[in-house]
This record gives sequence, C-alpha cells and structure tokens, in this order.
Amino acid sequence: MAAMSSVSGPHSLLLKNLNNGFFKTPSLPNTAHFIKPQSRSTKPHLSIITCATTQIQDLQTTTPKPQSQDRVFNFAAGPATLPESVLKKAESELYNWRNAGMSVMEMSHRGKDFVSIIEKAESDLRSLLGISDDYAVLFLQGGATTQFAAIPLNLCSDSDEVDYIVSGSWGDKAVKEAQKYCKANVIWSGKSEKYTKIPSFDGLVQNPNAKYLHICANETIHGVEFKNYPTPENKDGILIADMSSNFCSKPVDVSKFGIIYAGAQKNVGPSGVTIVIIRKDLIGKAQGITPVMLDYQIHAENKSLYNTPPCYGIYMCGLVFEDLLNQGGLVVVEKKNVKKAKLLYNMIDGSGGFYKCPVEKSVRSLMNVPFTLEKSELEAEFIKEAAKEMMVQLKGHRSVGGMRASIYNAMPLAGVEKLVAFMKEFQAKHA
Amino acid sequence: MAAMSSVSGPHSLLLKNLNNGFFKTPSLPNTAHFIKPQSRSTKPHLSIITCATTQIQDLQTTTPKPQSQDRVFNFAAGPATLPESVLKKAESELYNWRNAGMSVMEMSHRGKDFVSIIEKAESDLRSLLGISDDYAVLFLQGGATTQFAAIPLNLCSDSDEVDYIVSGSWGDKAVKEAQKYCKANVIWSGKSEKYTKIPSFDGLVQNPNAKYLHICANETIHGVEFKNYPTPENKDGILIADMSSNFCSKPVDVSKFGIIYAGAQKNVGPSGVTIVIIRKDLIGKAQGITPVMLDYQIHAENKSLYNTPPCYGIYMCGLVFEDLLNQGGLVVVEKKNVKKAKLLYNMIDGSGGFYKCPVEKSVRSLMNVPFTLEKSELEAEFIKEAAKEMMVQLKGHRSVGGMRASIYNAMPLAGVEKLVAFMKEFQAKHA
Repeated sequence: MAAMSSVSGPHSLLLKNLNNGFFKTPSLPNTAHFIKPQSRSTKPHLSIITCATTQIQDLQTTTPKPQSQDRVFNFAAGPATLPESVLKKAESELYNWRNAGMSVMEMSHRGKDFVSIIEKAESDLRSLLGISDDYAVLFLQGGATTQFAAIPLNLCSDSDEVDYIVSGSWGDKAVKEAQKYCKANVIWSGKSEKYTKIPSFDGLVQNPNAKYLHICANETIHGVEFKNYPTPENKDGILIADMSSNFCSKPVDVSKFGIIYAGAQKNVGPSGVTIVIIRKDLIGKAQGITPVMLDYQIHAENKSLYNTPPCYGIYMCGLVFEDLLNQGGLVVVEKKNVKKAKLLYNMIDGSGGFYKCPVEKSVRSLMNVPFTLEKSELEAEFIKEAAKEMMVQLKGHRSVGGMRASIYNAMPLAGVEKLVAFMKEFQAKHA
Repeated sequence: MAAMSSVSGPHSLLLKNLNNGFFKTPSLPNTAHFIKPQSRSTKPHLSIITCATTQIQDLQTTTPKPQSQDRVFNFAAGPATLPESVLKKAESELYNWRNAGMSVMEMSHRGKDFVSIIEKAESDLRSLLGISDDYAVLFLQGGATTQFAAIPLNLCSDSDEVDYIVSGSWGDKAVKEAQKYCKANVIWSGKSEKYTKIPSFDGLVQNPNAKYLHICANETIHGVEFKNYPTPENKDGILIADMSSNFCSKPVDVSKFGIIYAGAQKNVGPSGVTIVIIRKDLIGKAQGITPVMLDYQIHAENKSLYNTPPCYGIYMCGLVFEDLLNQGGLVVVEKKNVKKAKLLYNMIDGSGGFYKCPVEKSVRSLMNVPFTLEKSELEAEFIKEAAKEMMVQLKGHRSVGGMRASIYNAMPLAGVEKLVAFMKEFQAKHA
C-alpha cells in the first residue's frame, strides 16, 4: 500500500488544488470568458486552471473541432456519449478485428486474441489509476446494483455491522440491499435536504465495529460528488466507494479504498460491464449463500474468465482506457472536466436565478449537472428547443424532475459551449 | 397455456420427424452426397430431409455463397460465429444508429430509441418461439451461471426439494449451485459414462414433492442433446431447461416449460446477455436473501429495465432474431442445422474409426460435435493444419480433450463442407 502513495500523491494534490480553485470561487458573472487556452500536448499538466478572463479569440482558437454533423450532443446520464474516435475505431474493427478473421463479438473468451484484449484493458486501467498489485481488477456483469449485494456478501457475516453514508438515491439503494445480508446502518443521510450535500467528515459518528464504510462517490441523479474522502474509523479501516458515474473522470488514490466499483456505462464504455477494484486481502471470505457469480474469489482466481464475460463491452472499455491514456491520463482529463463543469455552473449561477442548481457549491458534481428553471412551465419547451439544436437527453431523472446535463469525459467542450450558448439565448427569449 | 399448442404443435411434430429421419438412420457411407438441394425460399418448409443420394452438381448449385475471404470459419463453442449479414448491419449502424445521431452503445436505456430496440427484440423472439402472454421474457446479465442461483432462489424455500438430471458439466454446475439454496437432488447422472447419454424417461424416478425438474437441454462440452423432454412428475409440473447452447436452433414448445433460459453467446448474440423465458405465475416468490438483481419479479415488473441492461448485446440479439425470422423461422433453421450436423456426423461415422464421436447416436447434439482421433498423437497437427485453412477453434474443451466443432445457426454450410473435406484429406494423408 505504501508504494501507492508515490503514484497517486501528486494526483490527489492536484485534485485538491483544482477543486479549491474552482468550487471555492464565488459565483462568477460570465461564462465563455473563463475558458483558458488549452494546450494540445497530450502530457499531463500540473498547472491549475485560473479564472482570469481570457480573450474571445483565445476561446475560438482552442475550441475543439466540432464533431461530425450527423452526431448529436448527448447529455444522457448513462448509457452516455462515447468518444467519437473510439466509436470510429470500433466501427472499423467490428467486422474483422485486426485481421483475426472475426469480430471481437465472436471470439472465444479463452482464445489468445481476447485474452490480449482483456489483459491490455486491465493494464491500461492500472496505469490510469495507478493501481498496485495489492489490488485485483475484475470485469464483471450485472451493474453496480449487483455489487450492492456482492459487497456485504463477500465482506461480512450476517451479524456484522457496516456503515453507509447516503448522499443520494444510489447510496440509498446500496444500503437497502446490504440490509439483507448484514446489519447495515445509515450514519448520515442527505435525504431531508433533498440530497444536495455531502456531510462534514468531522461531524460523522462512525461505528468502530463496522466492517466497512460505504459511500457513493458521485450521485448521478442528484449531482452531488465527494471532493475528498472520509477516513474510515472502523476496525479494519475499510472504505468502499461506488464510483459508477465519476470513474476515471479524475485521479483517485486507490490505496485509500478497500473496494472501488463502477458500472462502465457512464465514463468508460457501454452498459453491461462492471469494474471492481478490490484489495486482495479482502477476497475469499464470502458468506455460504453467495451466488458463485457474486463471489470475488471465483472471479479473481479466474481472471474474470470463470464464465463468459461481457467480451465486447470489455473491448470497448479497453479502447476508452487507451484513449484516456493518449489524452495524457486522468490529470489532463480532470482539467478538461473542470473546464466544462465550470462553464456550465457559472452560466447557471450567473443567470440571475433564471436557472438554478440546487446542489451546495463545494460538492457539485463534475459529471452530472442538475438544474431547474425558475419558470418551471418552460421546462418542456427548453427540452424541445434544445433537441431541435441537436442537444438531447437533458431531462432530469424522473424522481427529481428539472433538467440534468451529464457531461462525462466524452462530452466535448464544444457540446457544453453549445449548451451554454443555447441557455443564454433561451433566457434572453423568456426572461 | 392451451393456446400454445396450436403454435408449437406442428413444430414439435416436425422436430420429431426430423430427428427420427436423421438419428435413427444407420451410419451412412458417404457425406457430401447426402446434401439435398435447398430452396432459396424464405418460407418455412415442412418437408423432411431425406437421405437419398443427390448428384454432385446439385450440391454445387446449392452451396451457399462462400463468406468473405478475410473471414475464418470459427468453430468456437461460444462466444461463437455470428451471421455475416448481422455483423455487416451492426458495422453500418455502429456509429450512427438509423439517424439517431448516436451509437446504440450511447443510448439512454429509457429513451424511445432503445425501448423500440428491446421491444422489437422481445416481439421477434416471441414470434420465433411462439411464446404466449403467459410468459415473461427477460433480458438479463450474468450468464446462465447466474441463473443457476436465481432459479432456486426464485422458486423454492430452503427446505424445498428439487430434481436435476445431470447429462454434462453444465447440469452438474447447476445442481451444485442450487444446493446452496434448497435440497437439490440428482435423479440421474451420466458422469460414469462420461456424459455421452440422455436417460430413458421411462426409467427416471422423479420426486413427487420436488418443486421443479431441471435439465440442460444441450451440453456444450459433451455434445449431448435432449431430442424430446421428460414430463415433470412433481406436484406443480414444472420443467426448467438451460438452453444456452441450442436456444433458437430449432422449434421448441415453450408451453411445456416453467422456465427456459439461455446465455446469448452461442446462437443469438454476443456474450453478456442472458434470456429468461418464465411462466408468469412462477414470478414473485423469491427467498428473502435473493439479491435484487436475481429477483425475476423486479425484472418482469420493470420490463428488464430495472437497472441499465446490456443494451448493445440486446440490440445484437435483436438483429439475430430478425435474421432468423427472415430465414423463415426456426423450422427452416432446424433443417439447415440438421443438414450440417448430418454431414459432419456421417463423415465421422464413415471414417472407419479414424475419427470417433463418443456420444450415443440418438442424442448427438446438432450444435456441438465432439470427436477424437484414433491416433490421438495427431490431434495437435489436425488443429494446426485446420487453422492454416482458416478453420479455427476446433480444440475440445480442456476438461475432455479431443476436438469439438461447434456448428451453431450462424455456421454456414460451406464451413461444415470445408471441414469435412479437410478431415477426409487429413485422414487420407495419415491413415
């Protein structure tokens, strides 16, 4: 574990700086002006984005090439937009993968071609997140929801206690599922404040006997994101995070976690793949009632090939990991995400109340931006007009209403710029 | 349920006739000569394939167009070869599905485009198999192995008894998993005869108190296939079949089953999708310890959209279902499969012992053809030489050795013809 610090330390520091620079800045009066020219280098940058004004011509020269005209900007919360270059590569390889004479979809999962695909995907993910050999990386099926059961089944007896922080709907689902298999306690819930906050870690009362502390690192529906992580005060010091909707959106110090898990379909691939990063010493203690397919030991021993894995989905994740590395890794990716999020949040905050984001500023998600219109009767028109301009899936989750723009890694800056320009125009028309 | 008989009756009859015509025919001395001209019509044929000799020119005129030169013949047991036309269609739609402006991989699973995809897939599957409204059709994740746990968890209490017929490795895995959740009994096992047989149904002693009788309709590793089905003698009359490796390879009278389930990656799509066809009255009785993702009620109530399903895999299954309907449905598909299997088994049986298939003739699989070489020292060379001729994945499963040619729906007749020609040549060289 100690070996990890050197890998992830600088990333963590950067993350902290970026967030300080961004989220603690008071509402800023304008939007597009705050874009800083972005280097085309693919090397990581450690400089911090400042909020100093920049000339319009800078913005124009650095706006990424607009995507193909037949492509919409897809703000869906997941499955979500994928990098255009990854789709083009997948398209070119679909029928005949690198002269194998077959599609990836037709390959035996035990053949050398597919084994090379899954091994490269794992290796690239380890590079991206700086995952040490103390951790196993598993490519599983069933979504994060299956992990809601697998985690207590693998880590607890039915009489064990565990702690959950519930900062949104997904954390709520996770604890309810865990209650089937152990004594799962909610030590903090943001429900009464409509899931717009993350608790202060100082005030948390953790159970010293708990087997683990569980958080949902980014709540997709509510747009609430942990910017740093609580120190688990349970006897084994285990912190577990559902990172489905911010996985690989920024550097993370994996060594702080017992388990990180994520459905792929937000930031790293199509639906149908769930990635579990688990400290190896936590493997091998499953309850007797654990379905074999939920037993981490089975999957770790068989390198995710106990049964037939979701091969094509894993291949797609591998292409995305490669693309993220080619961009310069997660430090660079986070910078891009901060830039996009800032643009959108600043627009909302600068709209004089025409648009509102209910989430506390310091914990606003870089990935999912929920907002409402002061004149809620205009929401349907907003969505309709946006769709006419090729911007789709902006409706908020059915459980909370309003709007939500999901701006994952693969959402180009041009997409957010277009949305912001549209929002200004819409406001001007209806203010 | 009665309504089903009219749909599936003729199919069942045809199946019986086909199998009688095929498997009860004594070993025949030659192979290619038994190919009968195949109509190009896409309408179902009810005529029975005969084994009368046919002129070589007939064979030549009816041989399907060889597939593209860059494509190998892939005899893998799954993931397995997919129809070339389906791959081409998927390739053409990958980047931008029917002017939606995005890939199927990027679509919200709750958006109208994906909902149209999953609804059409279900509807086409219902047409193919004649599935009545008494049954729910679920598109799930996790492979058949997840269903090994889900079935007892949904249908039994932990004190209930259930019966399993074990005709191969998959049936064996199924009963072992079930033993975690109820009193699962093996009422017949083919293990002592190396899984080369299906029991006579007359001699079976079923447990009248069992909640269900479970079979694996086709054992992928051992090449043993049920040609008809035992009548369940348990109190609720429930028969359950794992049809992973012969799903949609022939008509099946669904009304005879409580549950049919199948991993998609043999006959109907890529890996990562598992289809469960379940009689609706069996839904809603899951044990308290059932993970939410293994609870059929959750998935049935949410039309397989409780969590994010494996969208792209479901889309691919839909393309395959459409292709099977376009071919004329499962009656036609079965005819093609019988023709291919006959060609290969006749070659083996006519080789004078150079090649041997260990499986009892009456229950040989139409899908997976295991065989050994009398001179087992030649097996490595056989595989190597076949690969040189673009025929791959012919090695038998690591647990049984020898060879295995999986000849699912999507394996063209030309592939089997090429294999048979190669086998003759190989024999001539080494006899």
